[in-house]
Amino acid sequence: MAEPMPRTILITGCNRGIGLELVKQFLVKPTPPEQIFATCRNPDAPQSQELRKLATKHPNLVLIKLEVTDPTSIWKAAKEVEKQLKGCGLNLLINNAGIMTESTLESVDEKDLLHVYTTNVVGPMLVTKAFLSLLKKAAQAVPQAEMSWHKAALINISSITSSIDKAIETFSLFPVLSYRCSKAALNMLTRCQSVVYKEDGILCTAIHPGWVKTDLGGPQAQLTVDESVHGVLKVLCALSKKHNGILVDWEGNTIPW
Amino acid sequence: MAEPMPRTILITGCNRGIGLELVKQFLVKPTPPEQIFATCRNPDAPQSQELRKLATKHPNLVLIKLEVTDPTSIWKAAKEVEKQLKGCGLNLLINNAGIMTESTLESVDEKDLLHVYTTNVVGPMLVTKAFLSLLKKAAQAVPQAEMSWHKAALINISSITSSIDKAIETFSLFPVLSYRCSKAALNMLTRCQSVVYKEDGILCTAIHPGWVKTDLGGPQAQLTVDESVHGVLKVLCALSKKHNGILVDWEGNTIPW
Repeated sequence: MAEPMPRTILITGCNRGIGLELVKQFLVKPTPPEQIFATCRNPDAPQSQELRKLATKHPNLVLIKLEVTDPTSIWKAAKEVEKQLKGCGLNLLINNAGIMTESTLESVDEKDLLHVYTTNVVGPMLVTKAFLSLLKKAAQAVPQAEMSWHKAALINISSITSSIDKAIETFSLFPVLSYRCSKAALNMLTRCQSVVYKEDGILCTAIHPGWVKTDLGGPQAQLTVDESVHGVLKVLCALSKKHNGILVDWEGNTIPW
Repeated sequence: MAEPMPRTILITGCNRGIGLELVKQFLVKPTPPEQIFATCRNPDAPQSQELRKLATKHPNLVLIKLEVTDPTSIWKAAKEVEKQLKGCGLNLLINNAGIMTESTLESVDEKDLLHVYTTNVVGPMLVTKAFLSLLKKAAQAVPQAEMSWHKAALINISSITSSIDKAIETFSLFPVLSYRCSKAALNMLTRCQSVVYKEDGILCTAIHPGWVKTDLGGPQAQLTVDESVHGVLKVLCALSKKHNGILVDWEGNTIPW
């Protein structure tokens, strides 16, 4: 069955891993989005080759340069996207770009904590602010519609390791302190965004994509990136107001904070 | 009744608010701690006058210069405290120093998010690392004893606004985004510390002192600083292993993450 897709979407961190796979799976849907803005730090670099190849084959895929730690870069990207949308809004923003370092409680230092927080929390905050008017515009286009990814949605890619509740059981396997602190803060950001942006009709949800065999997840991870993104898209497709301000996994299960 | 106090304690951010009141209430206990190390950014400044006055009257009160965002200052303070402890350990460390800014989701910028995170998360992480060997020494002195503040305890002063779960109901009253994100991350830090330091016999708990009439809480707050600290000390006194890695309020109620 051809599930209806949001018309316009933007995903950050698309040159590899989950970001790249999201782009791929959106592109091959029977009725793909009309415009997919795929951002990465450097679309011209060798590590963005696969993304560039996809763009040559798919006219609905637009590569945008965006560095989530650089406000100027973000605002430039937002201007470019606004221009290309030609008066339309943005239905879906996925804050996917993120980093993880190996720092443990023993090895962590101030530089590492701040570096990871900058990319994983400050980045999504800045990106969302820059694209907020476009999300609002998409929501305003269908004011009577229930909240969904067809109307307007903000998705922050979080992690099971963001769960303070589950840290007792997950810490020994994933002792990544800076990452954990940043993702717990990202969950708080998502929750606050869900309170404020609800009034604008924008759905805000944090998603744990599973432990995925990517550069970040490592080869011993449980899921292939294909399986993870397949699940994430199914979850996104079913999002409704009851998912506003919560953390769900790639199978749709709610994760406690 | 004279509740037994921990023998040696250190509290950060002692020149005002909850930190200052903690020092005062510890000092007037029937059997006060043998050594109270009260740290603040600048013990010689006019705003530390009250603390200096107390120190002239109480030989067990030692003022220590410590700026939580400056690793060099923290390590210097740790060396000084170690010297003054003369081979003893530190029973109780209270990471109380913290800041709050008025930034909302609309007004927040990257500078503010990072500034608050640096003081409220990086600070407690660095301070704890610097004093960890002294906490371990205190725990090792009574290896058979159950976890408690008499043995060795690390207390991170958190907030009800750190609760992601409760953010839906509390956000409109306290829309302080940078502070909320930092305190959610501090809760994660506390939880991770509780897993790791449990092996050393160090109890780790996050405490919400209530909404208190201080410079930070404002005049419309619910509790006087005296009421808050009275409650906090009662809670600290009753801490046991069942409180390891949780967030409790000044009345001893567990707050969900």
